[in-house]
Amino acid sequence: MVVIPQQRPEATPLPGIHHATWAGSAQGLSQLSLWRQTLAPGAATPPHQHGCDEVVLCLDGWGEVRTGGQVHRFGPDSTLVLPRDQVHEIASVGPMPLEILGIFPTTQVPTLLPDGQAIDLPWRS
Amino acid sequence: MVVIPQQRPEATPLPGIHHATWAGSAQGLSQLSLWRQTLAPGAATPPHQHGCDEVVLCLDGWGEVRTGGQVHRFGPDSTLVLPRDQVHEIASVGPMPLEILGIFPTTQVPTLLPDGQAIDLPWRS
Repeated sequence: MVVIPQQRPEATPLPGIHHATWAGSAQGLSQLSLWRQTLAPGAATPPHQHGCDEVVLCLDGWGEVRTGGQVHRFGPDSTLVLPRDQVHEIASVGPMPLEILGIFPTTQVPTLLPDGQAIDLPWRS
Repeated sequence: MVVIPQQRPEATPLPGIHHATWAGSAQGLSQLSLWRQTLAPGAATPPHQHGCDEVVLCLDGWGEVRTGGQVHRFGPDSTLVLPRDQVHEIASVGPMPLEILGIFPTTQVPTLLPDGQAIDLPWRS
């Protein structure tokens, strides 16, 4: 059992996206991974999909999730439930940064472009 | 894909423990479950174990996790990583309620007493 402080997200090579892995393989987990991310105003993830379920908690700010030809706006205290293999894109659409926590049921998070090509992520799960 | 509001925990038959399932089988998930709980000052879970990994985020308040003969104090912005099958007990030890989020890699969360007897939980995962 470990108690760890919740780190502030740090800059990544992805424009406008800061990241901190709050829990994952570094803590001996194999079944859970937590990604804490900050998206600057106007920033967005590329369209992508995961080969596993994902839950995203919006902690602060305003976002849009674009999936299946639909756009869903969300704000603080919202939870997004994203089934596995569903292509989605998350964008920061408010005047302040979008603060989110992505939760996955594995530390080997399969992350793919819409055409199925694997994305080599710049962080560890 | 669904966007759902984060519900306030409601009273349960467990003394001093309020609960809301923020995501789980009701949203079509099978690989993730999120339990949002409030423990009143002085309240504690019974000693128990899960047959899966667990991550607990402390959102507010002060707690103690008692496991393996050790006591770890934690506060806001702490993350607890609890390996599967480790007996633990979480207690609210501050003057205000302890606000936590428990995260599991399944919606069938095996929850057992230290002797291995299954606990029939009063909420749905």
